[in-house]
Parts: sequence; structure tokens; C-alpha cells
Amino acid sequence: MSILVVGSVALDSIRTPFGEVEEILGGSATYFSVAASFFSPVRLVAVVGDDFPSEHVDFLRSRGVDTRGLRTVKGSTFRWRGYYTYDLNEAHTLETQLNVFEDFDPDIPEEYRDSEYVFLANIDPELQLKVLEQVRSPRLVVCDTMNFWIENKREALLETVSRVGWLLLNDAEARQLAGDPNLISAGRKLLGMGPERVIVKKGEHGVIMLAEEVFFSLPAYPLETVFDPTGAGDSFGGGLLGSLSRFPEPGEEEIRKAVVYGSVVASFAVEDFSCRRLRTLTSEEIERRYCDFSAITCF
Amino acid sequence: MSILVVGSVALDSIRTPFGEVEEILGGSATYFSVAASFFSPVRLVAVVGDDFPSEHVDFLRSRGVDTRGLRTVKGSTFRWRGYYTYDLNEAHTLETQLNVFEDFDPDIPEEYRDSEYVFLANIDPELQLKVLEQVRSPRLVVCDTMNFWIENKREALLETVSRVGWLLLNDAEARQLAGDPNLISAGRKLLGMGPERVIVKKGEHGVIMLAEEVFFSLPAYPLETVFDPTGAGDSFGGGLLGSLSRFPEPGEEEIRKAVVYGSVVASFAVEDFSCRRLRTLTSEEIERRYCDFSAITCF
Repeated sequence: MSILVVGSVALDSIRTPFGEVEEILGGSATYFSVAASFFSPVRLVAVVGDDFPSEHVDFLRSRGVDTRGLRTVKGSTFRWRGYYTYDLNEAHTLETQLNVFEDFDPDIPEEYRDSEYVFLANIDPELQLKVLEQVRSPRLVVCDTMNFWIENKREALLETVSRVGWLLLNDAEARQLAGDPNLISAGRKLLGMGPERVIVKKGEHGVIMLAEEVFFSLPAYPLETVFDPTGAGDSFGGGLLGSLSRFPEPGEEEIRKAVVYGSVVASFAVEDFSCRRLRTLTSEEIERRYCDFSAITCF
Repeated sequence: MSILVVGSVALDSIRTPFGEVEEILGGSATYFSVAASFFSPVRLVAVVGDDFPSEHVDFLRSRGVDTRGLRTVKGSTFRWRGYYTYDLNEAHTLETQLNVFEDFDPDIPEEYRDSEYVFLANIDPELQLKVLEQVRSPRLVVCDTMNFWIENKREALLETVSRVGWLLLNDAEARQLAGDPNLISAGRKLLGMGPERVIVKKGEHGVIMLAEEVFFSLPAYPLETVFDPTGAGDSFGGGLLGSLSRFPEPGEEEIRKAVVYGSVVASFAVEDFSCRRLRTLTSEEIERRYCDFSAITCF
């Protein structure tokens, strides 16, 4: 099955209690693509500047990512600088340079428009809507978002949310968008906004998934060191859609398995900066940790 | 199997976003006893003043709680006044009147000293040690604690922790006692302090349990309204030890089931003030919610 992701490819400078890095490969679409690539090829739509190191593109291609939709334009690549304290649930932004990303206008290549799975990573909801207008009857569209769009582009975001199949967001965003401090009733309110399924990422506390008559809760993998949480949510999304796309007709059981695979890949992603851990990750390691999830949660 | 609990019986005045009550039945030993009583009789050791309403004692007896160890002395009963905002994870104390509880010196009745399961609810660790000196070779001792003792009676608390089988505490307490912001490595450090098992209560995020080569994680039951979280942890403890005591030789599988039963009873306890919901709770409702936990977590 074909998967399309539209989002950011960036250069991140990050400090955590465990180390510091400058201008490493980052961005929502990057993490999603690399995570999904363990299960399925991915089609990437994003923009970078002409300063973007070609080795990063080579890496994405080596993971089976179709980069024909990755446009290179004159200027500087999107850059983010931030840090985490020991409370790794919250990213502190020091600097955001949108650069070429400021004029990003997703033009979906003709050969991508029949993609069956579409992931609208965290970008301006007006751009997410533009993507929706270009794809032809996808089987499933999943969208992510962030507090900035909830505050500043609420109307467009609600329009996007009403038109996607699944909404994926973190716990603070779910509470904010629904205007409800209780996460369970917030999730129910988000379902009322249109999507048939809502998945709430809770970081170290795992993930919950809601649909009509459905509630699923999965704890996080117990990591003694979360080295860098950047990209955890997008890696989850990649593992989720990548593994889901392997099933011909996914039902509730397969969707839950996909949530576990998403959590598995995310748990590896946070073990090092950028995609470093994902570079060496093997399918055997993924399957082993999937079994660990069974052992950790069964009763 | 016989269960002994030593802790507080109190009169609470509580305000939550959903209502307000004055001088209702509360206290760690109260919640534990009532919760455990769904599975097993309980022996209660605590102290109240001569102002303590006899109807509360009648209620405890009606639940099969042995109140011969509940001493009534001249003076006022322990009172706590507090409130919760929408962040129901944190209790805000307005007033604590220790009253007769200030001179509480647990004298375990001779007929209680052969108890097989002992729950040292959150009291001064020096008193917890006194209880340990009085009981004869219990099968399992579980102790709870709180931030106040971690800060002010650390030495005595470490002595208690080194001498109990299981340590039960909440996430903030686990981080504080271990001096580690990561809950998983904090749990491992707590194991290093002596207990063979550590159970960390995470409120709306469920519970994790650690032992050598063992990790178990259970999400919380998805409640759209947490009416009053007071007593949730002690209700969990009561459901845990009560259900555990029904198994003749509990192993890992039975312990996990007991954690689920603890979570089930706690999830009911928070649906109303005081023990109100537990007064009407039936075994059928408990079993139904136990099955819900399976459905919510299985993949």
C-alpha cells in the first residue's frame, strides 16, 4: 500500500540533559518517513533549502523513501533550536527559522495523488486542506497538529479535522482543542468534530485511542533513559501507518497492533538524537519489543 | 486470609469542581478497609476522637471490617480540609488538624498479630516500624508513604522500606524518594532499597509495577468524570491486597490480577465523595469493570 506524508524536513539544534547537537536531521515528515519505512515505502512531500546536506537525502532514499516530492528551493532550510530539561514531556523553543518553509505550498506530484494512506504532519491547517484537495479518494487520512494552529488557525483546523479519518495529537493539544481538562471526555468531544478515530499521544504515559464504542489504552515502553524526545510523535505516526498499511483490510485488531508498532518505533526513536537509533534499528528488534509490550501489559 | 491495616480514620471537608462536602468519612485506613472488604474481611487499627459519629463505625462493621482495633479516645477526630482544581492529580491542603491522631501509638491487639497481610497506610514511618515489631511473620507487608515523611523522616522511612515486601507510592513520591526524574529508573532504585516489589500509582495514567525481571503497566480506567480523587490510592491498596488474599499461593499472574482489581475499586471510589460509591458497589459491577480492563488493554 502507498503512503504519502506531507510535512517538514528540518535541521534541528537540540540540548537535552544527556547531550547537545547542532543542525541534525529533523522535521515531522522526516521522522514519519523513516519510521514508516520499516514497514512500507513512503512518498515524501516537503521543501528544503539549497543548503540542505545531500547526505540526508541519500539517507532517506536508502530507507526506501520516495523523495521525488522533496523540493529544493533557493534559500535556507527550516531550522529549529530548542532544549529539554528533565521533564522531557515539554520542548522549550529557543529559535524557529521558517526560512524556505515559510512559502511552502504543497504541490502533490501527479504520481503521488493516488496514495492510499495520507499523513498530514503538523503544518498549517490551510496547507493540510490544500493537500486534501489534491489527493484522490485515499483509504485513510490522518492529521496531526500543534498548539500554535489550535490558537491561531482554529477555523481552518476544524475544517481539516472534519475531513480526515483519524486525528492524532498529544494530550495537551487534545485538552486545548476540545476545551476540556478531562482527557477522556476531551477525546469524545474531538470525535464529535468529525474524525472517526482519535489517537492521543501521552509521552511517557503511552497512548489512548477512541472511536465509537471503542477505547484502547497502551502504556509507553518503559525506558530508563529518554535521550531526546524530539520526533517521538511523528515516529509513532510512521510506525502506525506503516504497519497498518501492511494489512489488506485492517479492522480493530489490526489497528491496535499498528498502535503498538507505532509505540515500538517511537520508543527506539527517543533513544538517541535525530534518526540515529533508527539507522541501526532492525526488524528483529522491532518484533522483540512488540513482544515486550505484550509481556508488560498482559494480565 | 487475614488482612490488617494501620492508618488514619478521619473527617474530611473537600471541594472539587463538582461539589463540596463537610466532615465526611475519610482517612487512609477507611478507604483501604472498605475497598478490601469486597474481597476479604479486614482488621482495622486506628484512632478517633469521642466526636466520631457512631454511624461511621456501624458502616465499617456492616462491610465486615473488624473494628476492635479502632480506639476511641477523648478529644477530636483527625480532620483534613482541602480542594482540587480541574487538575485532579494534585490535592491542595487548606487545613490539617491532627487532633487525637497526633498521639496515635499503634497498639496491635493480640488477636490481630497473626495477620497474614499487613498494610501500613500513610502514617509516620516510626509508627510503621512499631507495627512491624508487633506482627508475627506476616506473609506480606505493604507500605505506603507521602512527601511529608520523605522530606522529614527519611531515615525512619528508609528503615521501613527496607523491611517491607512491597512499597506502594505515587509517581511524585517515587521520583522524590529515589531522587530520579525518570520513573522507570526511580522504580529500579526503590527496589534497591529493599522491597521485592514496587508499585507506583500514576492517577489518571494508571499504575506500574516493578520487581526483579518484572515490569507491568496498567492504564487507568477511562473515566469522563473524576468526582473526587481523595482515597483513590488507598482504595487501590485495599482492592489489591483484598483480592490478592483470596489466592492461596499468589504468583506473578495472580499479583497482576490483584493490581487490576485494585484499579477497578479505585476507579469506583473516585466517582463520588467519601465512600459513597463503594456503599452501593456490587461484586457484579467489579467483575464487569475487570472485564472492561481486559477489553481496553488487549491487542
